[in-house]
Amino acid sequence: MKFASDNNGPVHPKIMEALVRANDGAVPSYGTDALTAAAVEKVREVFEAPNAAVFLVPTGTAANALLLGCLARPWDTIFSAQFAHIHVDECNAPEAFTDGAKITPLGADIAKFNADELQTAISGFDPSNLKQSARGPVSLTQVTERGTLYSLEELSAISKVCRNEGLSLHLDGARFANAAAALGCSAAEMSWKVGVDAVSFGATKNGAMAVEAAVIFDPDKALEFRRRQQRGALVFSKARYLAAQMQAYLTDGLWLELAAKANASAVSLEAGLSDIDDVEFAFPRGANMIYVWMPRFRHQALVDAGAYYYIEQGLLQGDDPNELLLGRLVCDWSVDADSIARFVEVARGARL
Amino acid sequence: MKFASDNNGPVHPKIMEALVRANDGAVPSYGTDALTAAAVEKVREVFEAPNAAVFLVPTGTAANALLLGCLARPWDTIFSAQFAHIHVDECNAPEAFTDGAKITPLGADIAKFNADELQTAISGFDPSNLKQSARGPVSLTQVTERGTLYSLEELSAISKVCRNEGLSLHLDGARFANAAAALGCSAAEMSWKVGVDAVSFGATKNGAMAVEAAVIFDPDKALEFRRRQQRGALVFSKARYLAAQMQAYLTDGLWLELAAKANASAVSLEAGLSDIDDVEFAFPRGANMIYVWMPRFRHQALVDAGAYYYIEQGLLQGDDPNELLLGRLVCDWSVDADSIARFVEVARGARL
Amino acid sequence: MKFASDNNGPVHPKIMEALVRANDGAVPSYGTDALTAAAVEKVREVFEAPNAAVFLVPTGTAANALLLGCLARPWDTIFSAQFAHIHVDECNAPEAFTDGAKITPLGADIAKFNADELQTAISGFDPSNLKQSARGPVSLTQVTERGTLYSLEELSAISKVCRNEGLSLHLDGARFANAAAALGCSAAEMSWKVGVDAVSFGATKNGAMAVEAAVIFDPDKALEFRRRQQRGALVFSKARYLAAQMQAYLTDGLWLELAAKANASAVSLEAGLSDIDDVEFAFPRGANMIYVWMPRFRHQALVDAGAYYYIEQGLLQGDDPNELLLGRLVCDWSVDADSIARFVEVARGARL
Amino acid sequence: MKFASDNNGPVHPKIMEALVRANDGAVPSYGTDALTAAAVEKVREVFEAPNAAVFLVPTGTAANALLLGCLARPWDTIFSAQFAHIHVDECNAPEAFTDGAKITPLGADIAKFNADELQTAISGFDPSNLKQSARGPVSLTQVTERGTLYSLEELSAISKVCRNEGLSLHLDGARFANAAAALGCSAAEMSWKVGVDAVSFGATKNGAMAVEAAVIFDPDKALEFRRRQQRGALVFSKARYLAAQMQAYLTDGLWLELAAKANASAVSLEAGLSDIDDVEFAFPRGANMIYVWMPRFRHQALVDAGAYYYIEQGLLQGDDPNELLLGRLVCDWSVDADSIARFVEVARGARL
Repeated sequence: MKFASDNNGPVHPKIMEALVRANDGAVPSYGTDALTAAAVEKVREVFEAPNAAVFLVPTGTAANALLLGCLARPWDTIFSAQFAHIHVDECNAPEAFTDGAKITPLGADIAKFNADELQTAISGFDPSNLKQSARGPVSLTQVTERGTLYSLEELSAISKVCRNEGLSLHLDGARFANAAAALGCSAAEMSWKVGVDAVSFGATKNGAMAVEAAVIFDPDKALEFRRRQQRGALVFSKARYLAAQMQAYLTDGLWLELAAKANASAVSLEAGLSDIDDVEFAFPRGANMIYVWMPRFRHQALVDAGAYYYIEQGLLQGDDPNELLLGRLVCDWSVDADSIARFVEVARGARL
Repeated sequence: MKFASDNNGPVHPKIMEALVRANDGAVPSYGTDALTAAAVEKVREVFEAPNAAVFLVPTGTAANALLLGCLARPWDTIFSAQFAHIHVDECNAPEAFTDGAKITPLGADIAKFNADELQTAISGFDPSNLKQSARGPVSLTQVTERGTLYSLEELSAISKVCRNEGLSLHLDGARFANAAAALGCSAAEMSWKVGVDAVSFGATKNGAMAVEAAVIFDPDKALEFRRRQQRGALVFSKARYLAAQMQAYLTDGLWLELAAKANASAVSLEAGLSDIDDVEFAFPRGANMIYVWMPRFRHQALVDAGAYYYIEQGLLQGDDPNELLLGRLVCDWSVDADSIARFVEVARGARL
Repeated sequence: MKFASDNNGPVHPKIMEALVRANDGAVPSYGTDALTAAAVEKVREVFEAPNAAVFLVPTGTAANALLLGCLARPWDTIFSAQFAHIHVDECNAPEAFTDGAKITPLGADIAKFNADELQTAISGFDPSNLKQSARGPVSLTQVTERGTLYSLEELSAISKVCRNEGLSLHLDGARFANAAAALGCSAAEMSWKVGVDAVSFGATKNGAMAVEAAVIFDPDKALEFRRRQQRGALVFSKARYLAAQMQAYLTDGLWLELAAKANASAVSLEAGLSDIDDVEFAFPRGANMIYVWMPRFRHQALVDAGAYYYIEQGLLQGDDPNELLLGRLVCDWSVDADSIARFVEVARGARL
Repeated sequence: MKFASDNNGPVHPKIMEALVRANDGAVPSYGTDALTAAAVEKVREVFEAPNAAVFLVPTGTAANALLLGCLARPWDTIFSAQFAHIHVDECNAPEAFTDGAKITPLGADIAKFNADELQTAISGFDPSNLKQSARGPVSLTQVTERGTLYSLEELSAISKVCRNEGLSLHLDGARFANAAAALGCSAAEMSWKVGVDAVSFGATKNGAMAVEAAVIFDPDKALEFRRRQQRGALVFSKARYLAAQMQAYLTDGLWLELAAKANASAVSLEAGLSDIDDVEFAFPRGANMIYVWMPRFRHQALVDAGAYYYIEQGLLQGDDPNELLLGRLVCDWSVDADSIARFVEVARGARL
C-alpha cells in the first residue's frame, strides 16, 4: 500500500535490462557516445521535432532549473502556479540557476492558472518601469502538482498570451507521460503544437532510475543549455547510462504503456473510495494522483495497516477522529491491484 | 586500446548486480531509504569517521562544487593547482556554486603545489586589504590531473599551512582509490589524519556508474551541504540507486581492488614503453595515469591501429614525424593485458 | 505642485554646506578618513548603539540588499509585505545580493503585515522539508510603501515572532525619520528596543543628496557587510562626501526637523482635501505620504494645472470623468505651503 | 605631500559649483531629469558617439562590473592583465556581477599585456571543449595599474585579436583623462576608433566627487545595462547630482585640463627624483603615477616628514636601511608644486 510518490517505485525491468546491456566495454564519455546520440534522436522522434535541442539530466529539478536558466534573465520574474514544483519544492534552485530571477505565483488551489489570470499578472509588470522585475518566461506543470490536467485548449490559450507578450512557455513534465496518456494526445500535440517552447520531459517517476530529457524546440539554445549544464555540475561522464534509460523508456511505447497503467490504477483507487460516505475528492483527478478528504479515523486505520502516503496536516496535529484530513495518493506503474484493493478495503472498513 | 579516460570504462559487474538487487519494490525517496543510510554508514566506516557528513552525488564536479560552496564565501579566493580540475575542467561550476568566489592557481607543470608555494600565495592576500579577495579554502587533487601523487608528508605540510592560516582544506579525490592503493594507506590516513577537512570521494572513474561521496568531517556542515545540494538540483529522488553503487563499491574492498588493478595496468604500460628510445615520461607516474612524450610517427601508428587516447597538441597540428607530442594514457580497472601489450607493440613497431 | 516623490526634492542647504566644507585638501580614501569615522559615530549615537556596525551607502536599495545579503542564505525565503519596496521596486536586487533567496509576500493592501500573518506564513515552511525554501529573515518597511505606520506595539509583536522562530528582523527605513517624527519616538525605540536587528536608515528622501546608513546591531556582522559592500561595487573612494551628508543630517536634530516639516505638509494637504465630497483617503496616513481616491476630472484639472504626482491607473486608461483614480501624494521637506494651497484649490475647484 | 592616491584629492571647485547649482527645486528622479539627459549627451559628444549607451554610476568598480556583466556570460573567462583592478582590487565584484565568470590574468609586471600574449591565452581555451570556460571579453586598463600606457598602436593590435576571435573589448578608464592627455588623443581615438566596445570613463580620481560614465558603443545593450544597474542597487534616485558632476567635468575641457595638470605634476616629481643616485623608476611613467625604487632610509625620512604614499613591502618589514623598497606616487589635479618640491628635497636630503 505504497502511494506516497511515484518516486518510490522501482525501475522497470526493461529499463534495467537496457542498463545492463549498455554495460559493455569502453565508450567515449560526456555524451559523445553512440547511445546518447541514439537516445537524443529518439526523443526528437517522439516529439516529432527533428531539430530540437535535447539533453539528458538526472533530476527533474535539473531539467527545470537549467531550462529556466536559458529562458529567464536574472532581472525577470517567472510566472507559474503558486503550487508549482519550481516554486515550492526546489529549494530556490530556479533562483540559483537563473542567477536571481523571481517567481510570481498565480492561480488557485488546483495548481493551475488560466490565460486570464496569466494576462492579469503579466500586465502587473510594466516594461517601462525599470524598478519592477522584467516580464520573464511562463512555466506550467502538466500533470499539475494537485493531480489536475490542462486541456489542450487551455494550453493553447495560455501560449497565445505568451506569444502576444513575447514570453517563452516552459512545461514542467515530470509526469508528462501520464498527461499524454490521459489526454490521448501525442508529445508534439501537448508541446510545440500548442506553443510550448521547452519541456522538462520526465522519466524517473514513470519507471526510469534517474533520467529526464530537457527539450528546447529552438535549436539555437543548444550551446547555452550545454554550457549551463556543465557549469551546473550536471553532465554525466558515463553518459551512456542516462541514454540507455531514456532509449528503453521510449522504445515500443513503454513510456505511454507505463503511464496508462499508473493512470488506470488511480482510476481504480478513486472508484473504490468514491462510494465511502465521508470521503470526498479535493480536485478533479487528471492522471495518476488523487487528493482525497477523509476523516482522521480512516487515515488512522490505513496508517495502522501499513499504508504509506502523505497526509497534508499530519495525523497527529489534532485528535478529532472525524476531522477531515487531505491525503495524497500517487500510483506509479508498479502499483498492484492487490494494494489498491486492500487500501480501499481498509479505508472502507475503518470504524470510529 | 582505449586509454582516453577512466570515464570510458564500464560499470563493474558487482556494482551492476547491486543496482539490480536494489530494484525491489517501493522505498522512500530523496535519501530517506535504508540503503542510503547503509551506504552513508559504509563511507563513514571506510573513513573511520563515524560523525562525518556524507552525501552521495552523481558527478565529481557536483561533489567539488558543493563542497567548495560550503567552505568558501563569495568574496574568497580558493587556492588550487593551476591544472586543477576545478579550475580548468568544470566550466566555472565552482564559481557558480560559491556564488562568485575566485580561484588563485598555484604551482607548476605537475599539477601539484607545495606548502611553500601555498604559503607565498596566501601571503599575497592581506586580510586587512578589503579590496582584495579574502583568503578562502585550499583545494588539491589526489591523484593529480597530471597523474602524480602527493605523499602523506606533503599533504601534512600543506594542511599545516592551512591550519596556521585558519583555512579549510579540500581534497578532490576523483581518483582517491588509485591514490590510496598506490600509497598503501587508508582513507583516513589520506584525509582527516593529515588535516583534510572535506573530500570528494570518487567512484565513477573506478567502476561505478555515476556516484561520488562528498565527505565533510565537521558534521555541523551537514545541513548546509544538504540545502546546497537541493538548490543545486543534485538530490536524487530514487536515491537508493546511488547508494547501491557506493555500498557495493566499498564492500569487501572492491574499491581498492579495482584501483590496484588499474594502477598495475599503468605500471605495465609504462614498463612496456620505457625502453623505446625516443619515448619519455613527462611526469613521475603516481597511479593509473601516464603522460608520455613520443614522436608524432609513433602516435600516428597507434591512432591508425585504433588506439584511443588524448594527444595534447593534436596529431594534425603539424607534420614533422619526429616532433614530440604529449600523450595521456589512463588505465581504468577494465583495461586488459592484451590492450596494453598491443599498444606497446604498435608504439615500438612504428616506423618513420 | 510636485508631489511625485520625496526623491524629487533638492538637498537641504545645511547638507550642501557640509559637502562644501568637506571639500578641503587630501584625505585617505575608502572610508578610512576622520569624517567617516565621525559620521559612523554619530549614527551610533542617534541609535544609542555604541557597538553597532554602521556603513554608508548611496542608495536605499543598496542598504536593503546588502543587509539582506548578511541576514539571508541563498536557500532562504525572506518574509515581507507584498507591496514591499524590496519585492516590487528593486528589480531583483535582493535576489541578486542574497545569491538567489526568495521573497514570500504577506499581508494586505496597506503594505503592512501583522504578527499573526507572519506566524502563519512562517509555519508554512517546515524546516524538516528540505525541498522547501528555508525560513529566512523578516523585512518590514516603516513608513510603509502605502504611507501607513507600524505602532511600536505592532513592531514588538512582529519581533516576538521573529525571536521565537530564530529569524532576523530587518527594517527598511527609507522614511525612518518621518516615522520617528510621527510616532514621537527615538531611533532606538523604533529599532533595537523593539527587537529590530538591522536598519536601512534613509537620508536621501529627507534632504540628503545620496546617502543611507546600513545599521546592524550585531557588530560581528561588520566584516561580512564590508566584504559584501566591496563586492557589490558600493564602497566610495571619496567616502568623506557620504559622511559629510550623514553627519550634517544628524546634527542638531536636522533629520527629525525635516521629517516633521514633511509630515506637517502632508497633514495640511490631507486636511485641505478632506472636505471635498468625492475625495476619499485610501489608507490611514502615517507620515508624509497620502493615497487618495479622486474622480478623474479632478486629477485632470490638477495635471492640467501642472501638478506632478503618480496616478496608479494612469489618467488615460479610461474616459469616465467620474471614475475614481488612486493618486499618491508625497511631501518632502521642501514642499511649500503655496504648493499645497494651490493643489487643494485646484482639486476643489475642478468642474465636470 | 599626499601622493597615496588620486582618490584622496578634493572635488574641483567647478564641479562643486555645478552641484550647488543643480540644487534647485524639485525634479524627476531615477535619471529622467533634464540634467541627466544633458550629461549623457555631453558624454556622447566627447566620445563622438551619438548613439552610445551611457550611464552614470558612482564608483569605478560599478562601471567595470556592470559593463563586464553585459559583455560576459557566467561560463566565460575574461582576459585581463594580472595586475588589473578588476582582478586584484574589486573583491570579486566582476565575478558577482557576471554571476560567476572567471578571470584569466595575462602579462607581466607592467600591468600590460600585448596582442601576442592575448592571442596565446585565448588559444588556450578551445571552444569545442565544453569543460573549459568559454572565451569571454577582454579587459584592459588605460592608464594601467602600474602607471604605464598602451599606445594607440598597441590598442589597435589588441582589438584586432578581439575582432578576429569575436570577443568584446572593455577599457577600464579610471584614469582615462590622464591617458588621453598624455597621448594627446581624443576620447574617440582611444576607444571606438581603435576597436574598444565599452569604456569605464572615470571622473572621480580626476576631480569629481563620485561619478563615472559607463559607455557602450552598441546601443542595443542599453536596456540590459539599465536592468543590471537597477538590480545592482546602483541607480541614484536624485540622479541630477551625478549628472551635474559629469557635465561640469566635460565642460570647456575641464577633464583634460585637470588630467594634464596631474600628469605635469608627475613629470616634475619624476624629474626631481631622477638625479638621486640610488633612486630608480620601476616602470616607464605614462601619466600621473610613478613607481620608484628607493632605499628604506629615504622612505623613512619621507614618512617622518609627513609624506603619505604606498610602499609595497611596507617600511617595517625589515630593517636594512639600504634595502630598495617600491613606492607608488600618484599625483592628482590638486597636488601643488610646493608638495612636490618638498618631497624631492626630503628624499634627496635623507641621510643614512
